[in-house]
Amino acid sequence: MNLSFDHITSASNPSIKLLRSLERKKGRNETGLFLAEGARLIEQALAQNWQVETLIISNSGAERDYVQALAKRASDQGARLIQVPDRLAGSIARKDNPQAVIAAIKQRDLALDDVSPDATGLWIGLYECRDPGNLGTILRTADCAGAAGVILIENCCDPFSVEAVRASMGSLFDVALARTDFAAFNAWRKSGGLNMVAASVNGDTSHIGVDFVQPSLILMGNEQAGLPPSIEAECDTLCLIPMRGGADSLNLAQATAIMLYEGWRQRGFA
Amino acid sequence: MNLSFDHITSASNPSIKLLRSLERKKGRNETGLFLAEGARLIEQALAQNWQVETLIISNSGAERDYVQALAKRASDQGARLIQVPDRLAGSIARKDNPQAVIAAIKQRDLALDDVSPDATGLWIGLYECRDPGNLGTILRTADCAGAAGVILIENCCDPFSVEAVRASMGSLFDVALARTDFAAFNAWRKSGGLNMVAASVNGDTSHIGVDFVQPSLILMGNEQAGLPPSIEAECDTLCLIPMRGGADSLNLAQATAIMLYEGWRQRGFA
Repeated sequence: MNLSFDHITSASNPSIKLLRSLERKKGRNETGLFLAEGARLIEQALAQNWQVETLIISNSGAERDYVQALAKRASDQGARLIQVPDRLAGSIARKDNPQAVIAAIKQRDLALDDVSPDATGLWIGLYECRDPGNLGTILRTADCAGAAGVILIENCCDPFSVEAVRASMGSLFDVALARTDFAAFNAWRKSGGLNMVAASVNGDTSHIGVDFVQPSLILMGNEQAGLPPSIEAECDTLCLIPMRGGADSLNLAQATAIMLYEGWRQRGFA
Repeated sequence: MNLSFDHITSASNPSIKLLRSLERKKGRNETGLFLAEGARLIEQALAQNWQVETLIISNSGAERDYVQALAKRASDQGARLIQVPDRLAGSIARKDNPQAVIAAIKQRDLALDDVSPDATGLWIGLYECRDPGNLGTILRTADCAGAAGVILIENCCDPFSVEAVRASMGSLFDVALARTDFAAFNAWRKSGGLNMVAASVNGDTSHIGVDFVQPSLILMGNEQAGLPPSIEAECDTLCLIPMRGGADSLNLAQATAIMLYEGWRQRGFA
């Protein structure tokens, strides 16, 4: 192989500064890039034709075969290759023991226009989801359950944050994803004839009493506040996930998984 | 009220050093204590008669009514009360904006002898669960689903770590919990006649094909490696949670929630 690596050893190099800025939302917004760590994730990104702008390789990982193969593939798709000392890789990933490879990847536009509501799978809407670990975990579960996609509504956390990307375990690259306000979202789901089912403490039926076989969208509220009354009023069905008396509430990602797998169960896991 | 507070302002005070040591396993092991943050969690601990050794109150929170009420209650149950500047509270919680109250609580012995296998609820066994966020989240879900309890098997992460306590949202104080090796665990579940069902990629039936109405234990493996063959061989049933082709795997806490809620569904959520 004849790969061209830029070798950088200084933390004050502008490229390193730019890569380090991607840990924060400001840096991601300004550059349109985000970070993904580890060969498995980066391979998934390349397989789904996400554009890897830069591939960072640590000195200690550079000789490994799988790293060389990944670098070849990323380079073929137009990525710049940078080799750095392990401590610089760690400073980009904010970890003492960083992965051997880290990628700066171009964000995709998350316009609602790019996803069609007439899919056969179940849809998930997240209203003001604020925890990136929850968001990433929900993307991973949506991927496993073959959900049609995930719509981020109003003021959600950034799906391109390091924590969300990490928790998604690469499903960020696979799952249809859009971001919009509630009015546009509601018009969109109505245009597709999607029955909007929300999990809510105000539900009057259990989630297993809902008909998920019809075209459906599962709407989940904010971690602390749930859904506001004005949003619940727009839903077709409010359902309650059973809980024993005395318990407080389920974690958002857990509740989403329980709803999604109940819906998929009713569809015969097809 | 006439509460007696120790006022401490120095980070080098031995009491502060001890409290700060509880962030690490070594400190928790040496003292038998652990940290819980926030009034809601600490109230749950007191309500379940966990022994609060020390209640730390930040200067900015000290005048609030709910903090005073909590301090009174903790003091009545024998806690030492310490008031500190906000920056010291932050140094104990390792956060810039700590909660107004932090408690150092006495760990409970997690002996298997203290939990009886003949309960009516579903049991959860976690084999080498390594992620404290997963463990805490599973405790929270077990609490919501009225599970009989959670058994930590072999080399699991510490349920008293700050991250596990935080993710459990107080369910650590409510859920029956024990820690043991596999041999003792297996003898224990057999003595209670518990059908041991593991989620496994080697499962030959879907999780909805399992009879969870009989006395049952759900066994979940390690985040990366799952269950070793020798452990799977001891199970009564290996089942598979359906996943679409191409997806990798579910997060451990998500898979546990899906198993548990399927089991509880079969029992009519009773």
